[in-house]
Amino acid sequence: MSKNISFIDGLEGILKYREIDINQLVELPYDAVSYLLIMGELPGDQELADYSARLRGEREINREAIDVIRMCNFNIDSMEALRTIVSFISQFDPDINDNSPEGNMRKAIRLIAKIPTIVAAYHRIANGKEPVPPDPSLSHGANFLYMIRGSKPSDLEAEVMEKDFILSAEHELNASTFSSRVTASTLSDLYSAVVSGLCTLKGPLHGGARAEVMAMIDEISSPEDAEKYVLEKLAKKEKIMGFGHRVYKTYDPRGVVFKQLSRQLAEAKGNMYWYEIAEATERTVIRELVEKKGKPIYPNVDFYSGVIYKYLDIPPKLATSIFAIGRVSGWIAHCFDQYEKKKIIRPRAFMLDEC
Amino acid sequence: MSKNISFIDGLEGILKYREIDINQLVELPYDAVSYLLIMGELPGDQELADYSARLRGEREINREAIDVIRMCNFNIDSMEALRTIVSFISQFDPDINDNSPEGNMRKAIRLIAKIPTIVAAYHRIANGKEPVPPDPSLSHGANFLYMIRGSKPSDLEAEVMEKDFILSAEHELNASTFSSRVTASTLSDLYSAVVSGLCTLKGPLHGGARAEVMAMIDEISSPEDAEKYVLEKLAKKEKIMGFGHRVYKTYDPRGVVFKQLSRQLAEAKGNMYWYEIAEATERTVIRELVEKKGKPIYPNVDFYSGVIYKYLDIPPKLATSIFAIGRVSGWIAHCFDQYEKKKIIRPRAFMLDEC
Repeated sequence: MSKNISFIDGLEGILKYREIDINQLVELPYDAVSYLLIMGELPGDQELADYSARLRGEREINREAIDVIRMCNFNIDSMEALRTIVSFISQFDPDINDNSPEGNMRKAIRLIAKIPTIVAAYHRIANGKEPVPPDPSLSHGANFLYMIRGSKPSDLEAEVMEKDFILSAEHELNASTFSSRVTASTLSDLYSAVVSGLCTLKGPLHGGARAEVMAMIDEISSPEDAEKYVLEKLAKKEKIMGFGHRVYKTYDPRGVVFKQLSRQLAEAKGNMYWYEIAEATERTVIRELVEKKGKPIYPNVDFYSGVIYKYLDIPPKLATSIFAIGRVSGWIAHCFDQYEKKKIIRPRAFMLDEC
Repeated sequence: MSKNISFIDGLEGILKYREIDINQLVELPYDAVSYLLIMGELPGDQELADYSARLRGEREINREAIDVIRMCNFNIDSMEALRTIVSFISQFDPDINDNSPEGNMRKAIRLIAKIPTIVAAYHRIANGKEPVPPDPSLSHGANFLYMIRGSKPSDLEAEVMEKDFILSAEHELNASTFSSRVTASTLSDLYSAVVSGLCTLKGPLHGGARAEVMAMIDEISSPEDAEKYVLEKLAKKEKIMGFGHRVYKTYDPRGVVFKQLSRQLAEAKGNMYWYEIAEATERTVIRELVEKKGKPIYPNVDFYSGVIYKYLDIPPKLATSIFAIGRVSGWIAHCFDQYEKKKIIRPRAFMLDEC
């Protein structure tokens, strides 16, 4: 592998995928960033057109998958259903037993293309509606919102959804990516590796945090109430969701972009309410912990992305599944890297404390 | 945690669960070993009776799970279906959102109890037969063979099945256990952690090896042919399935027991054929690699267990799923240990090469 899949400078707040800063990458379509992660280089115009066409051609899921979605329990988080359906559809992938690089690439395209369709179909059926078939004329982000709503999103909404997928796509050896790599290291198939990632992303210390940020924003009744809420939490030594990160000791660079995007959405919709709650929460946390106590606790990737989902009318129970829509390209990039190593990850017990 | 979940001495060929040598543990029922792994101590008589009763009471799976099994693809390995159904049934566990130690214990019981039922129902349906309901009067091993066949196994077969589950139950931080722990480290739920283990066990460098041993035994046409087969493989520098281990540099202590058991089964059935093929294969590998070249390459856990499955009339496509029936107790013991740590496993990239 010539370029690292990602690079994090946790002190300076820098994140690069394949040596390109995420601030440049958010200006590209998700498909281009997905290609970059998996192939190691940005696509040329023709390569991007081909890659997008392959993705758009693989968005549909089979009838049986829709039938199993109908049998799901809609009273719990959507991740159980997503994990189940991704696992289920593997059985109908014509390349399931072809673990050559070409077979794996075909499976990768299908996984990236179909996961948004599964999440949207689940959401529609959970709400008593029929699934909306994917529209191949729309971008990854626009098509997802279209399948959720049954109507086309605004240009700004589609752009924000694309950028959310891009900023969620990759973050070195986070827990879900690491578990995908452990799975791939046994030469298990790509679906198994992605399901393993889904299992791990679900946890509240990982992707599950986004839904908890959304719940917190609902709990804070007004921007004026945010300071009181934070002070009470801190007094009880309780955690404030969406703050702090094992790697970043400064503002998470993804958080900077998500904050700008959530402000843009709030302004476009003429409703600053959730943005102002979030900003007041952030201001109080930074004043109390960073300025008074010198702790490096800033909003992480989950904080303003949770605010964005509020503005996009996405319910908390979909939040982690939507994180997965973006992250799957990163998982696959790491799996392909792991497959090349052909070496099983098998730590001895004493190594566990070092992770 | 007072006692290590397992202890391996790879040079001396010693394996202990919770400080008890596996040679002692194979004399116990699987339920007692499962209890030992999860609770940290061997059960007393009443504790074992209670634990067994709880397991036996939770063996049935819901109607919907059977319906989804009927929709599975039976032309591929059974692990895709097992992974899917374990993921699916999580949605109907009344404790899905209760991650307290008590809630997790109830989920653990259900997982251990239901996985054999899923594997057996899959096997029956795949072969055009109706699933056989579990029989609560039978041990874990006897009941599994009963659900597979529709008739009760011999005492020896039941005993061998129990010992297979025991010897497969735990092996420190093997890849599947490690991925379960990574998943649990995000405080994801126990089903997700077990599904993550299933995804990883499936790989041919891990649990998938057992099916490949069975395929190899079929490929070797007679005990006389084994030497020629091995010499040809070695001349082509190809791998011989079921030999060698990252940790053991001597005979795998589980392999010793599996070898004895496979001989017992062969004698009881009056058919030494597969045993003799396996023994001739082993003899040639040891002569060529250990004695001539000094390489520490001995049969591992997968070699004679594959032979046992031949004698138990278990098809190769079930082999990894049956490995999982035993291993789930180990995964759960590790997850409970990980839940107590409350710390996410998040290595940095440079650590990957150390595993």
